[in-house]
Amino acid sequence: MANSRFEYVKLFERENPLLPDTYIVLRVDGKGFHKFSAHYGFEKPNDAKALDVMNQAALSVMTKYPDVSMAYGDSDEYSFLLRKSCDLYERREMKLITTFASAFTTEYYYWWTQLFPEKPLDHERLPQFDCRAVVYPNFQVVKDYFSWRQADCHINNLYNTTFWTLVQKGNLTPQQAEQRLSGTLAADKNEILFSEFGINYNNEPEMYKKGTVLVREITEPEKQEQLSDRQKQREQKKRRKAEIKTLHCDIIKDDFWQQRPYLE
Amino acid sequence: MANSRFEYVKLFERENPLLPDTYIVLRVDGKGFHKFSAHYGFEKPNDAKALDVMNQAALSVMTKYPDVSMAYGDSDEYSFLLRKSCDLYERREMKLITTFASAFTTEYYYWWTQLFPEKPLDHERLPQFDCRAVVYPNFQVVKDYFSWRQADCHINNLYNTTFWTLVQKGNLTPQQAEQRLSGTLAADKNEILFSEFGINYNNEPEMYKKGTVLVREITEPEKQEQLSDRQKQREQKKRRKAEIKTLHCDIIKDDFWQQRPYLE
Amino acid sequence: MANSRFEYVKLFERENPLLPDTYIVLRVDGKGFHKFSAHYGFEKPNDAKALDVMNQAALSVMTKYPDVSMAYGDSDEYSFLLRKSCDLYERREMKLITTFASAFTTEYYYWWTQLFPEKPLDHERLPQFDCRAVVYPNFQVVKDYFSWRQADCHINNLYNTTFWTLVQKGNLTPQQAEQRLSGTLAADKNEILFSEFGINYNNEPEMYKKGTVLVREITEPEKQEQLSDRQKQREQKKRRKAEIKTLHCDIIKDDFWQQRPYLE
Amino acid sequence: MANSRFEYVKLFERENPLLPDTYIVLRVDGKGFHKFSAHYGFEKPNDAKALDVMNQAALSVMTKYPDVSMAYGDSDEYSFLLRKSCDLYERREMKLITTFASAFTTEYYYWWTQLFPEKPLDHERLPQFDCRAVVYPNFQVVKDYFSWRQADCHINNLYNTTFWTLVQKGNLTPQQAEQRLSGTLAADKNEILFSEFGINYNNEPEMYKKGTVLVREITEPEKQEQLSDRQKQREQKKRRKAEIKTLHCDIIKDDFWQQRPYLE
Repeated sequence: MANSRFEYVKLFERENPLLPDTYIVLRVDGKGFHKFSAHYGFEKPNDAKALDVMNQAALSVMTKYPDVSMAYGDSDEYSFLLRKSCDLYERREMKLITTFASAFTTEYYYWWTQLFPEKPLDHERLPQFDCRAVVYPNFQVVKDYFSWRQADCHINNLYNTTFWTLVQKGNLTPQQAEQRLSGTLAADKNEILFSEFGINYNNEPEMYKKGTVLVREITEPEKQEQLSDRQKQREQKKRRKAEIKTLHCDIIKDDFWQQRPYLE
Repeated sequence: MANSRFEYVKLFERENPLLPDTYIVLRVDGKGFHKFSAHYGFEKPNDAKALDVMNQAALSVMTKYPDVSMAYGDSDEYSFLLRKSCDLYERREMKLITTFASAFTTEYYYWWTQLFPEKPLDHERLPQFDCRAVVYPNFQVVKDYFSWRQADCHINNLYNTTFWTLVQKGNLTPQQAEQRLSGTLAADKNEILFSEFGINYNNEPEMYKKGTVLVREITEPEKQEQLSDRQKQREQKKRRKAEIKTLHCDIIKDDFWQQRPYLE
Repeated sequence: MANSRFEYVKLFERENPLLPDTYIVLRVDGKGFHKFSAHYGFEKPNDAKALDVMNQAALSVMTKYPDVSMAYGDSDEYSFLLRKSCDLYERREMKLITTFASAFTTEYYYWWTQLFPEKPLDHERLPQFDCRAVVYPNFQVVKDYFSWRQADCHINNLYNTTFWTLVQKGNLTPQQAEQRLSGTLAADKNEILFSEFGINYNNEPEMYKKGTVLVREITEPEKQEQLSDRQKQREQKKRRKAEIKTLHCDIIKDDFWQQRPYLE
Repeated sequence: MANSRFEYVKLFERENPLLPDTYIVLRVDGKGFHKFSAHYGFEKPNDAKALDVMNQAALSVMTKYPDVSMAYGDSDEYSFLLRKSCDLYERREMKLITTFASAFTTEYYYWWTQLFPEKPLDHERLPQFDCRAVVYPNFQVVKDYFSWRQADCHINNLYNTTFWTLVQKGNLTPQQAEQRLSGTLAADKNEILFSEFGINYNNEPEMYKKGTVLVREITEPEKQEQLSDRQKQREQKKRRKAEIKTLHCDIIKDDFWQQRPYLE
């Protein structure tokens, strides 16, 4: 075949199969979403409908890939947890991260057209996401990973809420608001909101303060370590059928995890 | 900061910077396009408008990333060549492949809405692409890589053209057509087309036989090896402004490459 | 400096830091030890003094690197277990494996000169070892790894013992012995040894049947997860001073591991 | 077989095959040679016999592995160049670097016993080397790599020569000598040597100033790109028989390379 003398070029391809028996986190992250949100006039500090596009996209991705146990997202990012025994694409890193980057992008696009029919996406500002994989060898680090993202959400949201209150209700320019907040601690920001604007941060919507947790509720997971092929298929089917709950709860404290031992 | 005790989880992240001074090929590949093309009723063996969506998406990606020197695509795949000195995302593999997978996906979606306004994309069958990076140390292998893809395009297109002619004009069932072609050589297929259906394969459209080549026409590239930062910026600007030509020509023979020394 | 214009070549260097919080096994393996043992006239099936060179070399390596928790060796190979929190050479794979390959080689050479003063090493047949690193995410796999090596030791030793008994006492040629053993099970080999030569395999020396286990006996390990720098130094000192025991015991059953929780 | 239930642990092993059609440099580097040279009383600034041990070890390694085209060493390090088409150990990085680390170590030990029979190696101070692989995609970078090492040799040797002259002939303490040289340029050091001690640095031995180059002199290399298996064997035999020359010449200028096109 004429083709065969060129096929040696395949020898330059490389794969990176991720370590077996470890948790994989795939995190997708919006590209240039600062400009994206400005371009489409997102409400500040949070645009409920735009967040809904993110959440619907993540839910669709999680529905499509039953190996995803849970997901957590806020702002323009989402983290997907693949269970320890996951063998999707033989755990090949390149395949996993590009598949999730593409799946999230296409779902975001789709849900945008559904939720913002009045705002068609412009060619010069299309939604785009990168993705990375991180491998975690035990469940404690996995919990700490999600705690890290939720703590980050809290820090950002408190800042943004105070910043935009100063701008929108306090009539400060963005520069003045930034200067005002420079060097302040969480308590200071809470105090500004409360004493100057009568806003109790604790009463802000949970989705903004805590982000969004998607969790596949497996009521009766298989208990054995080693499953036969037939058992694996049954397990996979069970995962496909399991309900995916959407929550805006605390995942830093132990409660969330203790109630869901099947995530481990 | 409350966040800091969790930040150690970042230590588990890994990067793979691709070898400097080598050519990078990024190849995006459609996921499940057999079913995708059936779902949306693509014309067989080739759907000119669907190929146009691919080509427009590739052209948009290439316009956005001036480090892409050329691209080649056919069917549901596209290969992008990054020039040897490219330092996009510090050549981090994960970032490059997920960015291109996402960029291609979002552009494909966009161009689909433009070219197929009568066929909105259905949620159960959205376009999706994976991507891989391959590193090539010298230009001979790069040429052989693109020759490999074009030879592959030719083999597939000759097969598909004959197959669908047997089905559409010869009234064979797909199974019968497959059986008929089993074990045939290129000459046999040409003969079937010509003697049974009066079709001269050579007269088929060039885009179907040769695929599509996008090439950035740099008329006056910088000649020095080592460029200053200002020279690099000027070079980058020149690349941005350079015209991208769309061709359906032979890239296996030397002519194409000899006429474009700036690709090397 | 004249040197600086060449220093860019360092940009092509790559590192692979092994995943944190995982067990690392470094396995050194003799190169061409079949010919090596023939050249120096090793006793068959086992040469006690040659095994002693291996064991002394491993003990010296383990003494030099306190991060090694235990080691297991038989024939011409040795596996070293680095504890989960080990940060030796920042866990850089290349540095770890080449350091252990070289350390084992130089120690083997040294102990050979001590134990075989009458057989100086010949230039055409010097001892050489390669080394690989394997990362294990949990302790169950670590135990299974060492079980794998010990099971392998048993299988080889039973074969070799029977083979050489057939040759040395049964006057078979090596070819005849090989043929005789082809397709036999463990029970068959035990039976040959016992009924034909009056040898009870169970009475063979433990070192030959079980291989050699080196274990660092930490009587009071630090219990906390997170140690201060001072605590880490104290821990390291404790590890340096801890006795390294040499055993020839079963490590497939749970007893060995249950008695040494500090290995985990 | 009892062993089989443990064999899954092999799934955790990883390989890194180095990119085909690129030059591989393997650099071995002494571990703690500052203390090593003090322990065994090396002459300062250069110990001719100790350098001879390095050179003999490198020559032996190069003789054993015909894929090594050339080597360059000074002080306690040696760099080996593997030719572009080298397929030794299928280019597996771990295997290559641990094999060379071990081979160099065992040869160093051997040649030490030959050249320093009066100084047997002490257990507390055995020679040890690490090794790294660097992949270079074209010959210009390879030349720059070796230029980098030779420039480094020159800088170090000029410093050391001046430093030890100040100590040995100028009766300065090491601290005073270090202070005296702090901030000096090459010209300053040449001047100190000449005006204060009558030493013309240019007349110092070439081996000290230039390091040592080992080069496999292939008088009639195969010219074709693609060799049959039989041609490969003939080529390999030719490489084995080719003379290895030991030089102390300049490899920064082009002459050395132009005279040896077969290195490329």
